[in-house]
Amino acid sequence: MDSKLITFFTSIQPISDEEINAIDQTMAVTHFKKGDILLKENQLSSNTYFILDGIVRQYKLIEGEEKTKDFFCQGEWILLTNNITNSFSDCYLQCCVDCTLVVGNSEKGEHLYKQYPNLGSIALKLMNNIFIQQQAKHDTYITDSPELRYLKLIKTNPDLFQQIPQYQIASYIGVTPESLSRIRKRILKK
Amino acid sequence: MDSKLITFFTSIQPISDEEINAIDQTMAVTHFKKGDILLKENQLSSNTYFILDGIVRQYKLIEGEEKTKDFFCQGEWILLTNNITNSFSDCYLQCCVDCTLVVGNSEKGEHLYKQYPNLGSIALKLMNNIFIQQQAKHDTYITDSPELRYLKLIKTNPDLFQQIPQYQIASYIGVTPESLSRIRKRILKK
Repeated sequence: MDSKLITFFTSIQPISDEEINAIDQTMAVTHFKKGDILLKENQLSSNTYFILDGIVRQYKLIEGEEKTKDFFCQGEWILLTNNITNSFSDCYLQCCVDCTLVVGNSEKGEHLYKQYPNLGSIALKLMNNIFIQQQAKHDTYITDSPELRYLKLIKTNPDLFQQIPQYQIASYIGVTPESLSRIRKRILKK
Repeated sequence: MDSKLITFFTSIQPISDEEINAIDQTMAVTHFKKGDILLKENQLSSNTYFILDGIVRQYKLIEGEEKTKDFFCQGEWILLTNNITNSFSDCYLQCCVDCTLVVGNSEKGEHLYKQYPNLGSIALKLMNNIFIQQQAKHDTYITDSPELRYLKLIKTNPDLFQQIPQYQIASYIGVTPESLSRIRKRILKK
């Protein structure tokens, strides 16, 4: 298994060699190119992704326009509602830059948790972490100005976000590309 | 244990009498009055709540103004980031109407999951469900108009939401009370 992924799991809770092997058989480290689509609207997929390197964008098509819902960065799991409910996806996932991802599978995961309660316990803690991250992202919609939302976003990965089209970032923080341009100018002046 | 709560757990996965007793010892059905505060900003609390009856509002104080973040209704768990991280709360929880709640405890819960892996497995499924609900709520911020967000909100509990001050609902859907008043008039005309 990829050493970063082992470090990630053991930072949550110790795991045995047998458990490492069991996880290894359900996951694969895969390289994707900038622009690659991981998931489309109306697709059935139980794939989940852990980001070793890169940025993945989640967006919805609303009346033909892309509405960016989320950016996932290094060290984050991409888990979507359709992974849990085995339903058709209502969104797209696209690699914003070249990415190295661990591709997991929510169905295979469930079998693992039954077989290895320790992994089930890790999954619960992982789910808690994902919940916390999602809550924090949701909070930025409730409490933060677009400017603060922009600053929080690029703080995680300033170099990589340089490569992302401004209209996608504008859509994420909920302003027009023109407003984002003004926000960026204000920040540069500070 | 309250029969509604047993039904709730067994609808996720079968549980034994021993497990029911174990859950029972960590939870208590409690009645609260309209206006009761369950949690304050900067408070440390590992209490979680399952709503048997009523509506609970989560809000933040931002520059002295209440910003309504969420309404929790019958059949929903209230789980907050501070429950998981054992950190100080950054928000308030208040009963909007008289409420009957099951008061659980996230710390006691963790001991239970270690002792009874079946309950740990239920906790993971429950966490998945909470994640799905939170995602759906977050999505309404990304894709829905304030009018649609209002309609989705009152659909769950139209009678009870009659009793909630308009400024709180306006804050939740992200408009001024005057705009909400216009939205309500438009809906009534349809």
